[in-house]
Amino acid sequence: MELKEEIIRRAAAAKMAANKLANIGTDAKNKALLAMAAALEKNKDDILFKNEIDVDAAKESGLSDALVDRLTLDDKRIGSMIQGLKEIVELKDPIGEILSTTTRPNGLKINKVRVPLGVVGIIYESRPNVTVDTAGLCLKSGNAVILRGGSEALNSNHMLARTIAAAAYEAGLPEGAIQFVETTDRQAIMELVKLDRFIDVIIPRGGEDLIKFIREHTKIPVIFHGKGVCHTYVDIDADLKMAEEICFNAKVQRPGVCNAMETMLVHKGVALEFLPKMAARYQQAGVELRGDAKTLEILKGIKTAREEDWAVEYLALILAIKVVDTFEEAVTHINKYGSQHSDAIVTNNKQRAEEFLKLIDSAAVYWNASTRFTDGAEFGLGAEIGISTQKMHARGPMGLAELCSYKYEIYGNGQVRK
Amino acid sequence: MELKEEIIRRAAAAKMAANKLANIGTDAKNKALLAMAAALEKNKDDILFKNEIDVDAAKESGLSDALVDRLTLDDKRIGSMIQGLKEIVELKDPIGEILSTTTRPNGLKINKVRVPLGVVGIIYESRPNVTVDTAGLCLKSGNAVILRGGSEALNSNHMLARTIAAAAYEAGLPEGAIQFVETTDRQAIMELVKLDRFIDVIIPRGGEDLIKFIREHTKIPVIFHGKGVCHTYVDIDADLKMAEEICFNAKVQRPGVCNAMETMLVHKGVALEFLPKMAARYQQAGVELRGDAKTLEILKGIKTAREEDWAVEYLALILAIKVVDTFEEAVTHINKYGSQHSDAIVTNNKQRAEEFLKLIDSAAVYWNASTRFTDGAEFGLGAEIGISTQKMHARGPMGLAELCSYKYEIYGNGQVRK
Repeated sequence: MELKEEIIRRAAAAKMAANKLANIGTDAKNKALLAMAAALEKNKDDILFKNEIDVDAAKESGLSDALVDRLTLDDKRIGSMIQGLKEIVELKDPIGEILSTTTRPNGLKINKVRVPLGVVGIIYESRPNVTVDTAGLCLKSGNAVILRGGSEALNSNHMLARTIAAAAYEAGLPEGAIQFVETTDRQAIMELVKLDRFIDVIIPRGGEDLIKFIREHTKIPVIFHGKGVCHTYVDIDADLKMAEEICFNAKVQRPGVCNAMETMLVHKGVALEFLPKMAARYQQAGVELRGDAKTLEILKGIKTAREEDWAVEYLALILAIKVVDTFEEAVTHINKYGSQHSDAIVTNNKQRAEEFLKLIDSAAVYWNASTRFTDGAEFGLGAEIGISTQKMHARGPMGLAELCSYKYEIYGNGQVRK
Repeated sequence: MELKEEIIRRAAAAKMAANKLANIGTDAKNKALLAMAAALEKNKDDILFKNEIDVDAAKESGLSDALVDRLTLDDKRIGSMIQGLKEIVELKDPIGEILSTTTRPNGLKINKVRVPLGVVGIIYESRPNVTVDTAGLCLKSGNAVILRGGSEALNSNHMLARTIAAAAYEAGLPEGAIQFVETTDRQAIMELVKLDRFIDVIIPRGGEDLIKFIREHTKIPVIFHGKGVCHTYVDIDADLKMAEEICFNAKVQRPGVCNAMETMLVHKGVALEFLPKMAARYQQAGVELRGDAKTLEILKGIKTAREEDWAVEYLALILAIKVVDTFEEAVTHINKYGSQHSDAIVTNNKQRAEEFLKLIDSAAVYWNASTRFTDGAEFGLGAEIGISTQKMHARGPMGLAELCSYKYEIYGNGQVRK
């Protein structure tokens, strides 16, 4: 009961703050962002101290090295958060932009104007930088934010949130604009996602289980960043040297992220020439290859790709490979097993490339480029709050504009409906 | 079990059709829409015959005259559906439109291109014209549609859906693009809303109970058309003659629709001059007035507005009236009791009007005009599939563009991520 009341109190406070934040000017928001950056700098030692508590506990509990690394803060990582806030200051304020304007035959002037969503609930796991990055993006887009981080980073997140919330308030933003849920009890999520009267959108940043749990328990709209089962299709008309560079980059440059390639499809007409060289390069880089029957005929001795390999997001140096008989087979495979994230074709055939871009139902579709470019900064949106793999509201990288809604402001001089 | 399988079969068929529909050209879609219009004309007698069965049953079961009227079809109403489809033909095809284009420093060209959502589920009550109107809008925007109408109109809806689905298929659209759920068992809705792997969005068109039921039982994004508790605020600097015309229109011209005014707020500085004349005109038109204490001091003998009057959507010739001391009181009242649909200020004070447009958190905010204009056609969007009172994805009147998503089509020449 106490937990529930605490969550309601925080959500209601965020809503009140959101009503004020919606009409706060760019200068005031930027001033607050810079104050938040300065406060992180000033409180660095305290933040690192609290982080040590989390890191020690994580090691003790046997968390994997990779997860301990994600959790660990140092001067450089706090510096990145500070830099991130400063970059958000430089981004154009999306609020108040007139998206379209029309004057109707009856003289009514109708402006479609960008406004904030209101209160954004961020439910995230692990990396403490999410606390700062998402709060900064929400404030710049005029939204209040409720943060609920994972238990393993509780002390770090709490200290970061307290630091930036106090700085934002002292710099003149409404009280309560940044809320942090201090308990990591899963019940806190249950209570939070019930509050559709206060919270306008929930953005889960975490694994599939978290997303599934939230979607099943809330009426609030959810924008989720699902998995990235990304493909590259090497067409019969591909420049094979280019294909090699693109496929190598898409798998190896940073395998642990959502826009890395997980399955490579190769047209049978070039497989014999392309696969052995490509495989050698992958194996030199430590990539484990798993192929279908036709691939195994060419690449002897690699593992067999099983049905479940086609739909899995490895996030590791593992690659599934399939030789396809036709362009259509590639398209069908991607639309069947992919996650509508990012998929690429390598070909010199313009018509086929354009067909691919139309037929593949994914957020980002590439012709002759690495899938690794699906990212807010690479798209020119500035920082991103996530990459949406759904079609409603926002798709692909989400920047400031994707954290907004709009309203119609209508100017009349006495018009009545006939 | 049989019901469940039937629903799954229909949803899967719609998804398959949607994949094809996404890349069908404008001419083919328009040809199908015209074929649907012609088929309605040709099958008019059969449709009217089936409708009679529904109307007779409705009368027998004691449905109110208003509801029987909503259900009843005649030559004119079928003519309106036919005309509606022809108007959709004239609307610009939203699919394929390039919403923005950018070339990045690395040479990647990124086009943001409008695409369909996929499969739209429409769950509606009463009026059979929804069957035809929504199917037409969905097809034109490249979406497949699953229709589930109310039990009282089952025979009419089924006949309409069969007619247009057959015509669309014969005209060359993919099989299964228009699906109709033949059972009106509520269990059918339960099964339908589980199918997030096939259905991309649910649009409920009906009362609050229906919306609530759906939102509580689905993971699929829902775009809902909530109630319209619309306000007009008559400011101290209003042109009172203009205010009278606007307030009369907003309440009386068509009281049964969502953009009609339900509460009138009047600044105390003009209440004494404005209210008696306005009240006389309302009472002559048969409007029942309910006032707060200050209103009752001026308009003796009218009913008292109770707390619940401020949040109710009368959809009838009833009006709640409140005298406010300040502009701020009006803003606070509207944001507290309103439904974020449509609200207006009447004033000659430009600064105050602009403050109102910013501070009121509603889909449509008006300066010196009737709230009755919130409508797709009046906004120049063409036909509408509903008016969203939420902030995610679409807000206010929803036309073809609001039934769409987008994708990023990216053109490279070998770019890899550094």
